[in-house]
Formats: sequence, structure tokens, C-alpha cells
Amino acid sequence: MEASIKQHLEEIVGPENYTDDLIDLIAYSKDASEHKHRPEAAVWPIDTNQVSEILKLATKERFPVVPRGAGTSLAGLAVPQQGGVILDMARMDKILEITIEDRLAVVQSGVVYADLERALAPDGFFFPPDPASGAVCTLGGNVATNAGGIKGAKYGTTKDYVLALEVVLPDGRILHTGSKCMKSVSGYDLTKLFVGSEGTLGVVTEITLKINPKPPLTSTSMATFEDLEDAGRAISEIMYSGILPSSLEVVDQQTLQAINENTDMGLPEVEALLVAETDGYTREETEFQMAKITKVFEKNNATSIRRSENEKEAEALWAARKSAYGVAARINNNLFVEDLSIPMSKVPEMLRAISDLAKKYDLKIPTVGHAGDGNLHPVISFDGTNSDEVKRVEKATKELFEKVIDLGGTLTGEHGIGLAKAPFMHLEHDDISMDVMRSIKRLFDPNNILNPGKMGLEE
Amino acid sequence: MEASIKQHLEEIVGPENYTDDLIDLIAYSKDASEHKHRPEAAVWPIDTNQVSEILKLATKERFPVVPRGAGTSLAGLAVPQQGGVILDMARMDKILEITIEDRLAVVQSGVVYADLERALAPDGFFFPPDPASGAVCTLGGNVATNAGGIKGAKYGTTKDYVLALEVVLPDGRILHTGSKCMKSVSGYDLTKLFVGSEGTLGVVTEITLKINPKPPLTSTSMATFEDLEDAGRAISEIMYSGILPSSLEVVDQQTLQAINENTDMGLPEVEALLVAETDGYTREETEFQMAKITKVFEKNNATSIRRSENEKEAEALWAARKSAYGVAARINNNLFVEDLSIPMSKVPEMLRAISDLAKKYDLKIPTVGHAGDGNLHPVISFDGTNSDEVKRVEKATKELFEKVIDLGGTLTGEHGIGLAKAPFMHLEHDDISMDVMRSIKRLFDPNNILNPGKMGLEE
Repeated sequence: MEASIKQHLEEIVGPENYTDDLIDLIAYSKDASEHKHRPEAAVWPIDTNQVSEILKLATKERFPVVPRGAGTSLAGLAVPQQGGVILDMARMDKILEITIEDRLAVVQSGVVYADLERALAPDGFFFPPDPASGAVCTLGGNVATNAGGIKGAKYGTTKDYVLALEVVLPDGRILHTGSKCMKSVSGYDLTKLFVGSEGTLGVVTEITLKINPKPPLTSTSMATFEDLEDAGRAISEIMYSGILPSSLEVVDQQTLQAINENTDMGLPEVEALLVAETDGYTREETEFQMAKITKVFEKNNATSIRRSENEKEAEALWAARKSAYGVAARINNNLFVEDLSIPMSKVPEMLRAISDLAKKYDLKIPTVGHAGDGNLHPVISFDGTNSDEVKRVEKATKELFEKVIDLGGTLTGEHGIGLAKAPFMHLEHDDISMDVMRSIKRLFDPNNILNPGKMGLEE
Repeated sequence: MEASIKQHLEEIVGPENYTDDLIDLIAYSKDASEHKHRPEAAVWPIDTNQVSEILKLATKERFPVVPRGAGTSLAGLAVPQQGGVILDMARMDKILEITIEDRLAVVQSGVVYADLERALAPDGFFFPPDPASGAVCTLGGNVATNAGGIKGAKYGTTKDYVLALEVVLPDGRILHTGSKCMKSVSGYDLTKLFVGSEGTLGVVTEITLKINPKPPLTSTSMATFEDLEDAGRAISEIMYSGILPSSLEVVDQQTLQAINENTDMGLPEVEALLVAETDGYTREETEFQMAKITKVFEKNNATSIRRSENEKEAEALWAARKSAYGVAARINNNLFVEDLSIPMSKVPEMLRAISDLAKKYDLKIPTVGHAGDGNLHPVISFDGTNSDEVKRVEKATKELFEKVIDLGGTLTGEHGIGLAKAPFMHLEHDDISMDVMRSIKRLFDPNNILNPGKMGLEE
């Protein structure tokens, strides 16, 4: 990147919001995935007009621009694979409006998820997606990946709450999509086109969210199953019981073993552990639903069922599920936190296939996931300096995704395609679908300046 | 349209699925709006390949193709404004799959909403949008307009349930979007781009829907308010009470007067009547929520509050709301069932503005609506043979939509733009937004063969 371009960037945002220091560029070469590539500069825009000026310059000078939230992507979405400029949205972090009577929150895209939750809590409201990285991730990042979390079965994902966006297009024009109304069918749904688009079509600067009143009560239970298929039948039968758990999580045997090796939790090393939560406004409602769930657990040969009597006990039941990533990270020095979705009835077959792959390729692949919406996270831990093991990981990953597609699944439920899944896009999407996606990319970003190399869009 | 083209169409679908009889063409020149224009032929395709062949022919010969469900559009979406061929999807009416354990229903686009509801009922499931025309409208039409209904406040609209689509593109290619998984962020969200696109981008042939377990219990109440502003405050305060009613409907004074003139219901002719419904799995849950609502009603000077003790009484409370359209249709020979959305806190100001417009232009505009999501339906009844009155209606409509936009609202919450709102698109959408929408239309349909003239997309 020419010095004159860097100077121009610095003029747009001011010297305090510009860097090309090596130490900063190294930090910006990574996100939470295993991918890395160094940018040539990074800026912290403080308003929409600066973003517009930067994109105009990028279009004129043809350099890549990679929007970045908190860099928590597990799929390389925030890695500047072709260099260029990192657009760190962290300094556009204002909550612009919260209007409870209209169920609205309007935020800049750099606002941290947890900060919005804290601002909504006094009124008893919440923005439900609840991503695992909620303490640090930004709402702009949530929009870019259509982030989900453990409440997806009942409350859906980010897309179900984004009403309107302010987006800067690659040519610098500022587009306003959607409206502040709960319902609108006025023209094409441009809003949803940007949700999950991984920063490849425009830079989101402002987000209008629908917010929900938070049911104040929950009931929690945990069940263990010697047999994976029993757990799978339990997941399916919960659907037939007519209720929607607010969470239904699964922890597999390898994860339980890893937890026991690294903690003193002393969990039974069964084939599957399920944690279920129901919510409501009355104790009768949460317990009525939980009674249905525990009945299904019993019917399907759960070897133990524990119910929490209070919040502290509920936290203890959640401990196994929530310690999974931390424990997996200790197994080896490298980690692919994978992400796939299948129809819920296919959860046991998928877990069995993952377990078989681990054996076949002599790998550890502990798996946890959101059984209630069929979204699983196999965690492939490996030693990146062991070239033989890396090759086995590559083969296992490819077979994993072939199996996912074979089961009617999708490559990613909530982490996005980014760099990690780009090579597999053709497994899920046929030529027509890829052609339509590429034509949309070309329409919005004809010079391919925005987050290039992601999503398998380049032929 | 040349005879050779008509012959080719007839060959594609077979003589039993083709018509150019005058009586049929007259029927197909209208939908439930006041718009009309005669097509030159109509076909009933019976499979996706026929739709593909028809669109290939249309692209080659450059004639308009207008997809049609049950023709219940109130905004002219199904009227073939530029002639051409009506593609009546009624004979693609198969429910292809219902898989409760995966929360899935897969249907052809000609399936009637009520038929799917009947098929889901034995398992206690439902597809929540519940449009007023549910007894006859098709699911393809629901997708084309992103249909909503009286359960929108809690359950959202059609878009919140469409997981995947099979769509025939104008060039005849068959596109598959989305997946059967509850969660997917694999590539751009092409599915949502087609939801609400009014048949202007492609012809939807197959729809995969997320379905919900239906909470079996409801509580219902009705309250009357002498003062519109009291009713408005009640709507806002229900949000602050922390619960989400499954329905919160409003009926205005002109509607109450019209009901009393045409029925023996003997309703109090107050400024606003609200009907609220809560749902849940236990009586405690529905009553807990309803107690919050009635407390808010009392605090805001409701002059009467009635609670239903059983289903029959609940139906009686709903009678006023549900008789509104039928009664409005009797006032005069022509009817615009309007559709607008505003933020919920603006409901009283909007109702007041509608009442003022009715006085100013000497019109009857009874209004009902979904107060819980800010979606109102002013029903403008008039005599279409009275040119002076028609002019007053036109002026009132224009002022109505200027006021809507002024209040931060949107031109349509659930009926779509079609022909009715096309002239007002520029009020809501700036040049950049219109330019992006038009560029998407050109990308998918460069020859403008699909439902041309709708949505204000032609410059």
C-alpha cells in the first residue's frame, strides 16, 4: 500500500485513529480461528462519514477493507486474507436509543453484546441470541455472522431481531434498510441480505434491533444417557411433547472425559449428557414444561436425571456444558471449534459419525452443541507442528462436512463460512446457487474490495 | 400475444391446464384490491419443470408472467398490470413433508394456509402467521407478501418461519435456497430476499417452513376507552409490564359505530376498544400475563373490562374485532383496506390522524389493527362512481401515507406494495435505497418479465 494512501487514510480518521505499527498489524492479522494474514494498516472510524470516505478511497485505489468487531470469529471472518486495511468498529460504540414501548434498541455496530444486555436489564428486556462470546463480541459482528447461541431453539438467532440497518456500500453511498416498525413489507428485504453477509457487501454502521421482554423464571435439568441413540430419541420426543425448551444442550462422551481429566467435576462418562432449560412467567409454567422433558428423559432410559431447585443448582448443572471449550483448549495447542447444523433428529447419527471419525483418524474431537436446534460444535484439537496430525485433521474435516451434507445439514449454523468453510461451499450449494451469490457480491462490490476471499465467492 | 406462443404454453402444461377463455381472463384480471387488468392467457402448472419451461419461453418471447396464489391481495400484487400470462399455482398444492421431530413442513406453493394448519393440528403444531385470509390464501402468496396476522406481536410473520425455498428464476433455472436446518449461515440469505418480493424476482414452487408447537391455553380480555390517548398509553405500558401478549388488537370509534349500525352487538361507541390474548401451557401462565394487562387497562381509565371465562366467551370478545371488515364492506360499494405500520407508541397519534382525515375529506375510515405490533388497517369505504369522492379518497390516502412516514412508520406491514402503494415508495425509501432495489430486480430479472409494474421499481 502506497504511503500516499496511508496518509490519506490517516487524514480521514485523524492520527489517533490510525495505525500501521507492526505490533498492531500483527494483532490484527488474527481472529479466534487458526487463520492469519497481516493487514497494511488499521483504522478506528468514529462515524459513518469516515467509513464512507474510507470506502470511497478503497474503491478509487482498489485496496481491500476488512470490517472487524471484536475479532472473535472462529472461521476467519475478520482475517485480512488479501491484506489492505482493517476497519475496527470498536470506537463506534454508542447505544443511540432504547425505547421499551416500541421494543427497539438502536446501536452503533461497535457496541459490545454484553453492554446492550446491561442497558436493557433494568427494564427486564433482552436481545436473545446470547452468543458464547457475548462478553466481548460486538453487535456488528453478530449481524455479520447472524450470531446464535444457546437460546436458539426457542428464540432464534440475530436475523430474527434485526429490523433496520445503516450500511455503507463499497462506493461510499450510505444505505438505509428496513424500518423501526415491528412489521414491514415495503420493498425487498435488504436488511436480511446484509445479516450474515460477513462484511462482504457493505459496512454496517448502525443497527436497529427488536428486543424482547425476558421471562423471569427458568427450570433446569440434566440427564445422562449410556446410549447415544436414547439421547437422540429423547431430543426428538421433546418436540412431540408440544413444548419448546429455551435451551436443550448436548455434551458428548469425549467432552465428559476431557472435563474429568481437567477438573474435579467427576461426571459420569456416558455417551451423552443433555441439559435442558424451560422459561416462563410463573413457576407452574416452567415446571409444567420441565415435567414433560424429564418424562421423556425417563422413557428413554436416562441413567440419571438431576433437577435444580434454585439458581445455584442450575449453574452447577450448566457447568459441564459451559466448561467444554476451556477444557478442550487444554488438550492440545491447536483447536478448530467446528460448527455445523443438521435436522434435530439426525443429532445422534451425527455424533456417532464424529466419534467414528475421531477413532479413524486418531484424533480427539469432543463435541457439544445446541441439540434443540441441531447445531453442533465438534472441537478438533491437534498439534499444528505435527504435519502428520495436521493432514489427518484435514481429512477428518472434509469427511465431517461430507457427512453433514449427506444428512441434510448445513456447513455452519452460527459461525459463518469465512475462510474456514470456503473450500466446502460447493458441497452444500450447487452451481446455480453459487452463481447467484457471486452475482450479488459483484452487484454490491464490483471491485471486490470488501473482505475479499471469504465465503468461497471468488472463482 | 401471438397464437404460436399461446400454443407453446398449452403444450407445456397440457390443454387441461391452459385457458384463454374470456370468462377466465376476466376473473384473473382482479384480485381483492380495486385494481384490474386483463391477462392474455392463464396456466395452472403442475410441477416445477413446467414453471421453468414457461419462464424460459417468457424470457425468449418477452411476455409478462404474473404468479398468483388465491388472488386475495389487497394491494394489487396479483393483477397482471401489463398483461401476459397468469401463473396460477393452485394445482401445485401438495404437502410434501411434515416432520415434527425436525420442526419442518415442506409444501408446494399452492397449498392453502388452512390446509397446512389442519395437517399440523393433530400433532399440536402450527404455522403461526395466521393471515385473515387463511381459509383460502396460499402459502406461496404468504411468502410473496411476507404475510402476517393477529399473532404478530409474539410470533412474528411469515419471514420468521421460511427456512428454504425452491424458486424458478426468470431464465428458467431452478434455485434452491436455505436448508432444512433451524440455523444456517452458509452464504447469503437468498431465502429472505424472495420472501416479500411479490413475485418479481422468481416463482416460488416449494417452501420449507419451521413450525411451532402451539401453546394450548389462552386468556382473553376486552377493554373500552373513552379516550384514545388512554388506550395508547395502555398499549405502551403493556410493553413495560414485561409480557408479550399473543394478540393485542385495536378497534376504533368509526368501526364500533359501523358495527352497531349493521349488527345487534350493541357495543359502546368509545374512542377505542382493545382485545388482548395471552397464551401458555398452564392456566397460571395465561392468567398471570392477563392480570398484568388488565391492571394496565384499569390504570389507564378503561371504562369497561371484560374477561372471558371460556372459549365461547372469548369468541364473543373477538366478535367486534373480527366483524370489522365485513361491516366496513357494507358501508359503500368500494373499499380500500389500507395497511400501515408505525412504532407502537404512535398508535394513538396515528388513529387520531386517521379520524381527522376522515372528517377533513368527509369520508368513512373505520380502522382496526394489530396494536401489539403497530400495524393498522384503515378501511376507506367510498363510492367509486362518485368522481368527487374518489378525488377526496386520493387526497386522503396521500396525506395518510405522508403522516405514516412522518411518524417513523412504513407503507405496509403485511399487504405489500403491489400497485396500491407503488406511487408512495419514494416517501419511505430514498434514491439510494430505490436504486439498490432496482438493481436487484435487474440482476434477477433483466428483461422485466416477472410481475412487472409492481413495487414502484420501474423508473
